[in-house]
Amino acid sequence: QGEDVVSGVRTPHDLGEMREGMPATHAQLMEILRTLEAHYKDMQDTEFTVEDGRLYMLQTRNAKRPAQAAVRFAVDSVEEGLLTRPQAIATIDADTLDALLHPTFGRDAEYEVLARGVNASPGAAKGEIVFTAADAVEKADAGRDVILVRPFTEAEDVAGFFAACGIVTSEGGKASHAALVARGMGRPCVSGAAALEIDLAAKEVRVSGTTLQEGDLIVIDGTSGIVTTDDVALVDPDADPNFEQVLEWADGLRRLGVRTNADTPEDARKAREFGAEGIGLCRTEHMFLASDRQPKMRTMIMARTEADRRAALDELLPHQQADFEGLFEEMSGLPVTIRLLDPPLHEFLPSAEEVATDLEHARMEENADEVRELERTLERIHELAETNPMIGTRGVRLGILHPEIYEMQVAAITQAALAVRERAGAAPELEVMIPLVAYEQELELMRGLVERVVEQRGGGDLVLTIGSMIELPRACFVADRIARSADFFSFGTNDLTQTGLGFSRDDIEGRILSRYIDRKILDRSPFETIDKPGVGWLVRLAAWTGREEKPDLKLGICGEHGGDPDSVAFFHMAGLDYVSCSPYRVPIARIAAAQAAVASAQGEG
Amino acid sequence: QGEDVVSGVRTPHDLGEMREGMPATHAQLMEILRTLEAHYKDMQDTEFTVEDGRLYMLQTRNAKRPAQAAVRFAVDSVEEGLLTRPQAIATIDADTLDALLHPTFGRDAEYEVLARGVNASPGAAKGEIVFTAADAVEKADAGRDVILVRPFTEAEDVAGFFAACGIVTSEGGKASHAALVARGMGRPCVSGAAALEIDLAAKEVRVSGTTLQEGDLIVIDGTSGIVTTDDVALVDPDADPNFEQVLEWADGLRRLGVRTNADTPEDARKAREFGAEGIGLCRTEHMFLASDRQPKMRTMIMARTEADRRAALDELLPHQQADFEGLFEEMSGLPVTIRLLDPPLHEFLPSAEEVATDLEHARMEENADEVRELERTLERIHELAETNPMIGTRGVRLGILHPEIYEMQVAAITQAALAVRERAGAAPELEVMIPLVAYEQELELMRGLVERVVEQRGGGDLVLTIGSMIELPRACFVADRIARSADFFSFGTNDLTQTGLGFSRDDIEGRILSRYIDRKILDRSPFETIDKPGVGWLVRLAAWTGREEKPDLKLGICGEHGGDPDSVAFFHMAGLDYVSCSPYRVPIARIAAAQAAVASAQGEG
Repeated sequence: QGEDVVSGVRTPHDLGEMREGMPATHAQLMEILRTLEAHYKDMQDTEFTVEDGRLYMLQTRNAKRPAQAAVRFAVDSVEEGLLTRPQAIATIDADTLDALLHPTFGRDAEYEVLARGVNASPGAAKGEIVFTAADAVEKADAGRDVILVRPFTEAEDVAGFFAACGIVTSEGGKASHAALVARGMGRPCVSGAAALEIDLAAKEVRVSGTTLQEGDLIVIDGTSGIVTTDDVALVDPDADPNFEQVLEWADGLRRLGVRTNADTPEDARKAREFGAEGIGLCRTEHMFLASDRQPKMRTMIMARTEADRRAALDELLPHQQADFEGLFEEMSGLPVTIRLLDPPLHEFLPSAEEVATDLEHARMEENADEVRELERTLERIHELAETNPMIGTRGVRLGILHPEIYEMQVAAITQAALAVRERAGAAPELEVMIPLVAYEQELELMRGLVERVVEQRGGGDLVLTIGSMIELPRACFVADRIARSADFFSFGTNDLTQTGLGFSRDDIEGRILSRYIDRKILDRSPFETIDKPGVGWLVRLAAWTGREEKPDLKLGICGEHGGDPDSVAFFHMAGLDYVSCSPYRVPIARIAAAQAAVASAQGEG
Repeated sequence: QGEDVVSGVRTPHDLGEMREGMPATHAQLMEILRTLEAHYKDMQDTEFTVEDGRLYMLQTRNAKRPAQAAVRFAVDSVEEGLLTRPQAIATIDADTLDALLHPTFGRDAEYEVLARGVNASPGAAKGEIVFTAADAVEKADAGRDVILVRPFTEAEDVAGFFAACGIVTSEGGKASHAALVARGMGRPCVSGAAALEIDLAAKEVRVSGTTLQEGDLIVIDGTSGIVTTDDVALVDPDADPNFEQVLEWADGLRRLGVRTNADTPEDARKAREFGAEGIGLCRTEHMFLASDRQPKMRTMIMARTEADRRAALDELLPHQQADFEGLFEEMSGLPVTIRLLDPPLHEFLPSAEEVATDLEHARMEENADEVRELERTLERIHELAETNPMIGTRGVRLGILHPEIYEMQVAAITQAALAVRERAGAAPELEVMIPLVAYEQELELMRGLVERVVEQRGGGDLVLTIGSMIELPRACFVADRIARSADFFSFGTNDLTQTGLGFSRDDIEGRILSRYIDRKILDRSPFETIDKPGVGWLVRLAAWTGREEKPDLKLGICGEHGGDPDSVAFFHMAGLDYVSCSPYRVPIARIAAAQAAVASAQGEG
């Protein structure tokens, strides 16, 4: 009979009926439940059955609570003297707290579900349908709320993420580009809503007999993965005093610092509200994707000579400096880690296929000028095209090939810091970070470059340290040598996962991941939670050998894993100084860091 | 004055003049030279000067000898009792021996150098210029000798390498695709002959005022990197009895086995002549590139359903079986390691840009049928296209996604082995190898598949073991777990270098390598000689932990490094059982393995 209950063959009765029908057994049950709750010090999810008037207890476990209930339980149980603060913090499932930080569908909202997808990034959003990043930017500039709807997204769509209130895709899961970028920016996202047939050419969405056009209203709930066309009322999250209380306790308990990944003043401000203690990763390339910079960036890339490239860089410098000033003003007095240009240059150019199509068109129309121009562009695209850009000409390799790019960036950083110090009285603590280092000589050369440019630009008295991303397996093995030129390491666990596992994130997620989960090879994406046996070992190895060479080496992590509670616990154990995650994950990381400290203190007895 | 000699400011005199002019000093010098040679037990390259009648010895070091002199010196010095066999073997520079195994320009050949490039793969070759793999195949089929001339080569050009006598490129160095494939096949290759302006569209080569057309004669020397249009006589290498003697001694000294990487009966036969003790890597994908298989392979890939895919695979099976039979006949009684399909499927399809151009053309000509067909092809290419194919859907991931492909291959292997045993009395020792394993469950699943199909096809009594490529960093960390399902490991050091260093071979070589060598970050390509601090550690880690789990685990290496003497020494120290290299590197690996054994015996006292 017990199995019948668990397997759902029998329909359970209401507890009220039991009190009426068998009061003695009911009283016995209530007594047992009180004992269980006192013993486990947590709300219990208990299964029992009554056979021939006799009570059988089947199983009990800590109950999963929605976020609001979880923080209330934690605060209440401390106030009632049932739990200590560390014990109370340990009862919270940090992953669920996301729900407290985003707008949601109203409690009594009624709506018809148009499609279901993956709950890729939490929160609800509504707006007009747009199909391209350019349309998103245009309409957003005109003050409209838009939702970006695409089969899948790529790097060139990122401007659209900034502009949109939310994102929907018909392909991909929690580790898709759309999901990762949306979570990083705190934009609600439903991915892999496969029922939506998204026709970019016709600019329409066909779904179960209806057709939606550009401009039609769409509403999404990224917390539950729901898409609807009903005008559901969205409710802003209230500041929850219990949550605030729990976060304050967490800060008193945790050893790990919590920073944020932020590229814009808005993100930085939001993250500080959420308790971020600095910026752990500012990706400077996002600054080149805005519509007023992209043409200048392309000119720089198309340049054939160093002189032409330097001229184009001189044009970019004021933009880059202005971006840094905005960020630095938000973060004065706090550490800001700035990663120099990382992605391959061809990411800033149009696709070869696109240009080849235009070229064939121009040829058949015998438009000689256009043919010549397009041929030149295509040639440069071919020159720069790479078979495997993720492991090609990017990161520090760009700095070695074209030092003038990094020189411009360091000049912009220095001048921005000086200007902000002048205006606001204090600059941030600058941490210049070199990406994709594999050889100690790479960092040594780039350290020389940074120090020289900072000095030249009059920044000699700024608080400025220089460090290395650790995101390649080789770097972990030679971390002691790299540490000689590094003031800090920041683990880029996204790329370390890509190289350590041989998993191209863009490719693996859509094709392999679900099959691997089906076949029980994986239970979660290694881009969501750190792969401890492989990537985790690499992190530990680098932490140990790096600190052996330089005991005061600062260690942080700025991959997607910085916002995952399981991974945060691992980083605590590995001895890191801080984690850095997207703004909306900061409160979660604060709780997770406290839980890790509590757990390891228990382990120590 | 000493410095003047070394720096070349003074022109040295002839030794004959010295004997005439200053006989006493000359006699003193001769005495010193004899002492030095006896002490260092090797021919000496010595610098000295005479100032005011007084003899100053400046420096001395072991002399570099050309290959023929080196083996003669080794044999002579043993016969004269000057050196023991181990000592004599140690005097040889194994890297130079290549020259003894390939045709060369005649000793007195006179010719005008048309262009110089990198000596990418040794040996001389002559033939008619062709510009495409298809032309190479066509002309070779018609009995003509051809040289393939291209700016650079890619995977789709490989059929042209088989057909051509030699390869010339205007771009890329020793680690370019052309160089690696040419060395692997023993085809002479000059790469990076930058003076050649190769115009594929016009099918001509422009160089210093001349223009060469398709069909014109060209002669190359891959040992020296020379290209000429003069009809130089080529001389086949004589069987050198000294070399044979040295190789025989080496076989008595070495502990490492030496196998070959071979995909065809011709390569296998050649390698056995050179002393290979089996095949360490048979790449089954090369079997699908031949012109009669490619259409069937494309049908398989374009298939939308498993049933269609199985039907196309049934068509491929007899071809694959016939290929295996040819190979197995050459290797009966010896081990043959067969790697199941490894590259991403889109490598067998045309490029998106090519199809997009054709499609735009067909659209403008309003050819509706062609438009439809091309649209379908382009759609499939887009579906399969990957951002980073090297770390995308390939290797065991294909086997997990489409088990029917591996099933066909295992059926072909089993049936071929049974047929050869029937005909020739003995099949080889089969070693079925699963590529790109990162998770132990991957190998476990594929082991089940292989065992099942072998049994189904009646191969239960064949000598057949199952193992794993180790070519991803994660695999090295979990080698003990992988070893539970593996009879052997074969280190794929090419891919382990790509992932461990984050270096896409196709991209890094052309753009980064020379700059890195200039900046003294690297001294040789890590694809040529193993990167000991990073990749080497990964190899050792996997060897140790794998053997800890399974002490009799067989360990080999089948990357390009198996033919590099420095790397061979490393693999000896790491405890591997064998190295596998391209046929023409086999004698070099035999010598290098003996040298490693001698050196480590010395180290032990």
